[in-house]
Amino acid sequence: MSKPRKVVLAYSGGLDTSIILKWLQVEYGCEVVTFTADLGQGEELEPARAKAELLGIAPENIYIEDVREEFVRDFVFPMFRANAVYEGLYLLGTSIARPLISKRLIEIAAETGADAVAHGATGKGNDQVRFELSAYALNPDIKVIAPWREWKLSSRTTLLKFAEDHQIPIAKDKRGEAPFSVDANLLHTSSEGKVLENPAEDAPDYVYQRTTNPEDAPDTPEFIEIGFERGDAVSINGEALSPATLLTRLNEIGGRHGVGRLDLVEGRFVGMKSRGIYETPGGTVLLEAHRGIEQITLDRGAAHLKDELMPRYAELIYNGFWFSPEREMLQAAIDHSQAHVTGTVRLKLYKGLVRTVGRWSEHSLYSESHVTFEDDAGAYDQKDAAGFIKLNALRLRLLAMRRRRMGG
Amino acid sequence: MSKPRKVVLAYSGGLDTSIILKWLQVEYGCEVVTFTADLGQGEELEPARAKAELLGIAPENIYIEDVREEFVRDFVFPMFRANAVYEGLYLLGTSIARPLISKRLIEIAAETGADAVAHGATGKGNDQVRFELSAYALNPDIKVIAPWREWKLSSRTTLLKFAEDHQIPIAKDKRGEAPFSVDANLLHTSSEGKVLENPAEDAPDYVYQRTTNPEDAPDTPEFIEIGFERGDAVSINGEALSPATLLTRLNEIGGRHGVGRLDLVEGRFVGMKSRGIYETPGGTVLLEAHRGIEQITLDRGAAHLKDELMPRYAELIYNGFWFSPEREMLQAAIDHSQAHVTGTVRLKLYKGLVRTVGRWSEHSLYSESHVTFEDDAGAYDQKDAAGFIKLNALRLRLLAMRRRRMGG
Amino acid sequence: MSKPRKVVLAYSGGLDTSIILKWLQVEYGCEVVTFTADLGQGEELEPARAKAELLGIAPENIYIEDVREEFVRDFVFPMFRANAVYEGLYLLGTSIARPLISKRLIEIAAETGADAVAHGATGKGNDQVRFELSAYALNPDIKVIAPWREWKLSSRTTLLKFAEDHQIPIAKDKRGEAPFSVDANLLHTSSEGKVLENPAEDAPDYVYQRTTNPEDAPDTPEFIEIGFERGDAVSINGEALSPATLLTRLNEIGGRHGVGRLDLVEGRFVGMKSRGIYETPGGTVLLEAHRGIEQITLDRGAAHLKDELMPRYAELIYNGFWFSPEREMLQAAIDHSQAHVTGTVRLKLYKGLVRTVGRWSEHSLYSESHVTFEDDAGAYDQKDAAGFIKLNALRLRLLAMRRRRMGG
Amino acid sequence: MSKPRKVVLAYSGGLDTSIILKWLQVEYGCEVVTFTADLGQGEELEPARAKAELLGIAPENIYIEDVREEFVRDFVFPMFRANAVYEGLYLLGTSIARPLISKRLIEIAAETGADAVAHGATGKGNDQVRFELSAYALNPDIKVIAPWREWKLSSRTTLLKFAEDHQIPIAKDKRGEAPFSVDANLLHTSSEGKVLENPAEDAPDYVYQRTTNPEDAPDTPEFIEIGFERGDAVSINGEALSPATLLTRLNEIGGRHGVGRLDLVEGRFVGMKSRGIYETPGGTVLLEAHRGIEQITLDRGAAHLKDELMPRYAELIYNGFWFSPEREMLQAAIDHSQAHVTGTVRLKLYKGLVRTVGRWSEHSLYSESHVTFEDDAGAYDQKDAAGFIKLNALRLRLLAMRRRRMGG
Repeated sequence: MSKPRKVVLAYSGGLDTSIILKWLQVEYGCEVVTFTADLGQGEELEPARAKAELLGIAPENIYIEDVREEFVRDFVFPMFRANAVYEGLYLLGTSIARPLISKRLIEIAAETGADAVAHGATGKGNDQVRFELSAYALNPDIKVIAPWREWKLSSRTTLLKFAEDHQIPIAKDKRGEAPFSVDANLLHTSSEGKVLENPAEDAPDYVYQRTTNPEDAPDTPEFIEIGFERGDAVSINGEALSPATLLTRLNEIGGRHGVGRLDLVEGRFVGMKSRGIYETPGGTVLLEAHRGIEQITLDRGAAHLKDELMPRYAELIYNGFWFSPEREMLQAAIDHSQAHVTGTVRLKLYKGLVRTVGRWSEHSLYSESHVTFEDDAGAYDQKDAAGFIKLNALRLRLLAMRRRRMGG
Repeated sequence: MSKPRKVVLAYSGGLDTSIILKWLQVEYGCEVVTFTADLGQGEELEPARAKAELLGIAPENIYIEDVREEFVRDFVFPMFRANAVYEGLYLLGTSIARPLISKRLIEIAAETGADAVAHGATGKGNDQVRFELSAYALNPDIKVIAPWREWKLSSRTTLLKFAEDHQIPIAKDKRGEAPFSVDANLLHTSSEGKVLENPAEDAPDYVYQRTTNPEDAPDTPEFIEIGFERGDAVSINGEALSPATLLTRLNEIGGRHGVGRLDLVEGRFVGMKSRGIYETPGGTVLLEAHRGIEQITLDRGAAHLKDELMPRYAELIYNGFWFSPEREMLQAAIDHSQAHVTGTVRLKLYKGLVRTVGRWSEHSLYSESHVTFEDDAGAYDQKDAAGFIKLNALRLRLLAMRRRRMGG
Repeated sequence: MSKPRKVVLAYSGGLDTSIILKWLQVEYGCEVVTFTADLGQGEELEPARAKAELLGIAPENIYIEDVREEFVRDFVFPMFRANAVYEGLYLLGTSIARPLISKRLIEIAAETGADAVAHGATGKGNDQVRFELSAYALNPDIKVIAPWREWKLSSRTTLLKFAEDHQIPIAKDKRGEAPFSVDANLLHTSSEGKVLENPAEDAPDYVYQRTTNPEDAPDTPEFIEIGFERGDAVSINGEALSPATLLTRLNEIGGRHGVGRLDLVEGRFVGMKSRGIYETPGGTVLLEAHRGIEQITLDRGAAHLKDELMPRYAELIYNGFWFSPEREMLQAAIDHSQAHVTGTVRLKLYKGLVRTVGRWSEHSLYSESHVTFEDDAGAYDQKDAAGFIKLNALRLRLLAMRRRRMGG
Repeated sequence: MSKPRKVVLAYSGGLDTSIILKWLQVEYGCEVVTFTADLGQGEELEPARAKAELLGIAPENIYIEDVREEFVRDFVFPMFRANAVYEGLYLLGTSIARPLISKRLIEIAAETGADAVAHGATGKGNDQVRFELSAYALNPDIKVIAPWREWKLSSRTTLLKFAEDHQIPIAKDKRGEAPFSVDANLLHTSSEGKVLENPAEDAPDYVYQRTTNPEDAPDTPEFIEIGFERGDAVSINGEALSPATLLTRLNEIGGRHGVGRLDLVEGRFVGMKSRGIYETPGGTVLLEAHRGIEQITLDRGAAHLKDELMPRYAELIYNGFWFSPEREMLQAAIDHSQAHVTGTVRLKLYKGLVRTVGRWSEHSLYSESHVTFEDDAGAYDQKDAAGFIKLNALRLRLLAMRRRRMGG
């Protein structure tokens, strides 16, 4: 890789990415553009601007953006149409944010004439893969700089030394080592590393940041109604809400009731297993609700096909292949299935648990006249079942005849 | 179908199957053998014997058996190795019991020289399919009688009239219509029909029979440890337990904490959607625990393949294809994956929720030295990630080059 | 089912459907509308009109249509985008024609105020399923009459007697029994039954109707070039052709060279195995060509996903689920993949064999600079492969460490 | 990676691996053990011994083995049970040989106390991945040396110079550049590179080495019968043959008739597309025959599941994951399905084409009494089909009712 001239850095304003910023200037002598996104991580962005300026970034090279609506509308919601969970449990909160960041990095590189992008993910995790696959998929010639894979600053001591040497301000609480590492956005908070590295031990309570401990949650359940249109949530208790506002609201409600905690050991794309603590309050509610509305509006054939495609779809997102033809193919199939996923779901939240307790829709396929135990006035002829079973059984009977014939 | 001479009836001792018993005698003039199984439904079986005798069944034609261990060991546990859930949520509690009943019906038919079997499932449900596919798969020449599809007794009034005409005792509480229909075994209780037929309305509290209302569950969480060997649960809190004893114990623990309630609208194999209330306390704990132990003992490749095969596997069981080559093929694959699924999971139960909070195993694939944020002493070379990403990205870059070239 | 008033019959003009026509008049006393379609079966349609009139059908109730272009454009081509083959070999020539016929039957029923449709398929085959599932999917209230499942005319003798009794003209060659049964359309000819019922015996040469015996095919190979646009064939040897014209031309070319013969035992949806002789000259060429153009224009991720989805897609079509949400979902995914499947394939046809021998496209993803054995000037860094392999190997190494540790 | 002490080299005796041998001695100063396997590539092995000795390898460090039977029995045959083809066409001839070579390299390393293995595959291809994934899966601590990714000898000139400098004999025909690169074993010959790098151009005739040009093949067809037992071929024309002998014989027969040529552009695991010419005469016959015997002996449910799993299975082998849990899981499923795949297939070979023309088996599931057009004496009740269709149609009708209701 030839030396980059100008690099767009995914910049949080924190110590680590500030060190990266400086290191890019020092090591590569290149111009740096910073991109700081509000993905709903719950931090002020303006301090990042001040800090970037302090580190010598020209104002026109500082990009600070609120991408929450785009994040939920174009990434989170399409993913939830698939009921995507990774390894049965993980709602992909970190995975789904990375392609959006890369997309903006590449777009800003085009606007600013940068030939490289940089990120602060380590060489052991999945995020590097997600950032870089997305970047390459959008610009095949982009250079990608991943300082954590390159530099010699990996120990805390050398990092702090580098910061001091280059007049990078260090917040007091960053002097010591954080007891674990955190990633957050509107969909989730994930915590991993350090005190969480032993998967036999329960996560300490202080790890949880976004959800009430179920034991401390309200003693009375809360009931809410989520409205859906074509597979996407559009309202809570009858109030129409934009995607990001809706998810924010669900985070509040779910978080209050302790919903969405997950303690998981997962298989990383780079090959090892890792343990994470995830909090996805709104997403957990949303998944339950989406399954609830699909129950009455989605045909069985479509539903089962979706269930079979889902693990692959989730794996693609986890592994960083959002911008791949196969993810788009699956999305086309999934989206096609959602045309009638419209209606309302009633949910009960209580002490960490969220359950569907009612659902209704003009698009419902549920037919009481077909299913009823009462006389059904001819909607369904029970005698048809005999033929249905006989023909489904035919190949099994032929197998049994062979078994008898062959003495097996 | 020529007229059956002798029929083995799946007999519960209740009013409906007693009427069937008599109807078989009257309608077909055939000898009846009764089979009553203890699957853990929580009812005394001896009254069934007395009632069968009262209805004229010879003692040698009355089969009453405790099949709970076989049920859990040979049906429930193999299914849980797959983490099987139907339509994302249903733990298949009814579906998995049917093949065992059919197997015994066919075996008893062979022992007693019967040429037919009969069951009390209706013509609208899945159970008729499950009973009959299993029966035909085990004996291709068996005759199957499904009175609910044949007779003219479908209304409550005519049924009661038939019972009275034939001196079939009617328990007082059976005079009126039950407000919903119940199926139960060691794995679950399902309730459906009547008051539950409107999927928009929450199920009344009196429907739940096996689980405490989470609001009424203990205010302090309970922690338990489940031990696994080769994919099957073998102990609770260090105490080795037989399969059925273990599941019974989990039902008590889970039920006490309100775990395992499900309100579902599902797609039946016979084509319509139906709404069921399921209580699967022990099974819900078991599924969570099995996923927990797999997290550290199952390789990612195996785990993801299992996740992809699972929906099909669950659908086969739901549809009644337990005794089919394709279910057996999938089972062979799943069982192969479980050789090292051995270890212990720690779970927290509280107010309806069960969560894995720890897991450990001598067979663990989790490697702290690979994943650690600390210096890893060469177990993993972060620079390898660069090449890994570059080659994974290559085809995406070639696609991007084409897009640019074609102006798309 | 209440008695139908007016029925649209899929009418070929042959003896069997003429008997059905009359039987519908006699048995149900209902008005009959005939629909005769030119699907490329190679028969004159006007005699069907004359015969229908002779049997008393009013001119306005006789529908005769050339649907060849619609057939190829809207059914055959979408299916070929998927490279669909059933059970590894069968190109689905009969299966894909049925939904189109049903679609027109239902449309004509709407136009003419008919409340029923009828077809001449037997109760043992797949075609009845395909006709009827399509019909019900398009009109849930339609009545379907399948005389072969109802009447008492199943033997040849009684059929001929019925025809004579009702003044239905019988062609001389129809007096005796045909030695096998034939279905034909623009995509294929299938032959089955009677002399073909023993799958151990080679099909007699006279069975083949549309393809030259390879031994009699030209002694010199023929080379052709097929042009594709977005997954569909659009030209032969540079000449733009409409879908049906193109397939007709390919049938001539392929048939001349003995391409596309298949002797297959397949598993029917209704449960038994059957043996068929298929001739699909143009389709066989088209499948080879489509695979050829996809080789350079389709990304690996998309291609592999297509390959995994294909068997299910083919099964859906075979089983008659063309008009189902899951087929449409898969179609959406497949169609999405075809945006760049544009280019030209060169094929060699010789003595029954067709092979791709060249392919080129502006949309090609093949990059000689990446793959070349020559110095590649930096397009690809071979050292990246080391990291790629190391990380792909990591989980396998962790498994091997466990195996060693556990002594397994 | 620390410096290796002793390395087992996959040694062909050719110029390239001789240079590698010497380079390992020179570059790493390590002891070299050579492993030369007869996989049926059609070359004498003893010259490899002489050459190894000439290059200073001690006799006890020279391993020369005929592994043909193991190759076919334990690798080729299990793969053919799956009907595995990669990207619809490629029979995986190179892919399936690599794990066996790696297995022996690792075993010999254990026997000789070597801490490393080395191979001669380049950094652009799939073979490096296959060699190394297999090696790591069998010994997690093994060092792997891939000289083509490391050295500076990549140009022909520098390679020859190195050979001359180190007294490595150079056969005359190796002075110039080969016009393409070849890999061969008992299953296939593959050719790629150089003159074959333009996928638009037909492969020159001299590329083909193992199959007669179909135009030059015999003018009369040949019929053979292949016997199968439990999914594996065991005899030709009634003569029982060992696996390797049988495949050798099929190669002769198929090759004589020009069967098994393939011109393919495929997607490599390392990310680019490449063009290969494959000749797999015996394998092509075997695949056709295996499909033929499965047609009558394999249940539809099993067959369709196999077809759906196959692309993944083939991809795993292509990508080098033979020794992975997921390949073994799929193998367990596939092998389970083969218990009754026993019987005989009759094939016709002519001018490049091989077709099944007959098959029979005591294990046949084909039931003439069920399928016959003649009166079937009650084996099948056509009326059952009506109920079968009605229930399969129910969900489609409910969808149509919704469509009508919603005006969509």
